[in-house]
Amino acid sequence: MLKLYFAPGACSFVPHVALEVIKAATGADFETTLVKFHKGEHTTPEYLAMNPNGQVPVLLVDGKPLTQIVAICEYLDRNYPQAALLPTDPWARSQALSMLAWMNNSVHPTFTHIFRPEKFAAGDAAMAELKRFNTIQFAQHLERIQGHITHANPYLFGDKISFADIYTVVFWRWGGIAGIDPDTLPGYKAYVDKLALLPAVAAAIERERIVLHMFKKA
Amino acid sequence: MLKLYFAPGACSFVPHVALEVIKAATGADFETTLVKFHKGEHTTPEYLAMNPNGQVPVLLVDGKPLTQIVAICEYLDRNYPQAALLPTDPWARSQALSMLAWMNNSVHPTFTHIFRPEKFAAGDAAMAELKRFNTIQFAQHLERIQGHITHANPYLFGDKISFADIYTVVFWRWGGIAGIDPDTLPGYKAYVDKLALLPAVAAAIERERIVLHMFKKA
Repeated sequence: MLKLYFAPGACSFVPHVALEVIKAATGADFETTLVKFHKGEHTTPEYLAMNPNGQVPVLLVDGKPLTQIVAICEYLDRNYPQAALLPTDPWARSQALSMLAWMNNSVHPTFTHIFRPEKFAAGDAAMAELKRFNTIQFAQHLERIQGHITHANPYLFGDKISFADIYTVVFWRWGGIAGIDPDTLPGYKAYVDKLALLPAVAAAIERERIVLHMFKKA
Repeated sequence: MLKLYFAPGACSFVPHVALEVIKAATGADFETTLVKFHKGEHTTPEYLAMNPNGQVPVLLVDGKPLTQIVAICEYLDRNYPQAALLPTDPWARSQALSMLAWMNNSVHPTFTHIFRPEKFAAGDAAMAELKRFNTIQFAQHLERIQGHITHANPYLFGDKISFADIYTVVFWRWGGIAGIDPDTLPGYKAYVDKLALLPAVAAAIERERIVLHMFKKA
């Protein structure tokens, strides 16, 4: 049995959508548990026993926890190849894992500097500088992703949605929170709107009760 | 043919040692190219065509580039299973990938904040705060790794050296650069000294011309 611990709009959205894709392709069902960060549910002894980092996602497989997006995605692909969440060609699969790893270790933490600067520095001045500097970096990352989207045919790695595609949706939402004007990224916006229509993506959006377009004009 | 682009003491040490392990286990040879950051060799058009991030490592496989530590390691394990750089049991393999991903997206960038604060903020005060704050975080990461080492039997994931073991050597060296006193981490130090005696590790250390113990008393 598969059980996903997620927080609305967090990177746990990537395995969340993936589990919907797997369910549609194979019939394998899954459970979800919403982790309420504002109630400190990620800091209980029970949760930290599953994930000492106190982060989402955690995937429970028959009661055993697996953490880290990249490891969870690789596990899901290996166990549910029918869902084709990574390309079947070995080299293309490695390239898709490479992009996923880049998103996870570069794009994702850039936003963390904006959203949770207290994880990297103390003091109002340093935290304000982290927000300022990394908002510029994050916009550059989104532009680079938009460049990848230009070559999507119809998805980043071929004719099936891949983990990296799902991550683009998460980053799009975070871009709005970071104050990055969606009008500067029309190709990216159109791609996210297209992905949001897929049943698996729509189901996860509904369960997480999130809105993808978060930008508000100042 | 395999060719690794590396910089001395960088995280490219992980695939570097892995390639030595693979060579010993299978006879598959490899080439290496030292990327001289101080000469800007990571910013040439030729290099950026291989890796737009301008980072090491890049693994060329028959002339085609693969980037990102986690993707490179997963590729090497899948193509050279005889080297057993990840456990063969599927669940243990996922756990080893999870630790590798954590090292790559959490421990590694914490040191980047100390060594290259200009990647995250501008201004002397903010950069000094990043160094101060993240040195504390990095020491905590090393303590946590020392906790994992306590359970090594004899390696982190069983009777063969794994990618995560190799990464611990990189972090140990970086800890010395960050000014973390090795006397506070005796179990970790003993583990690194043990790993350094392995022929594959010793060969990479010699080719990179690096010293593992970098700490200098103030």
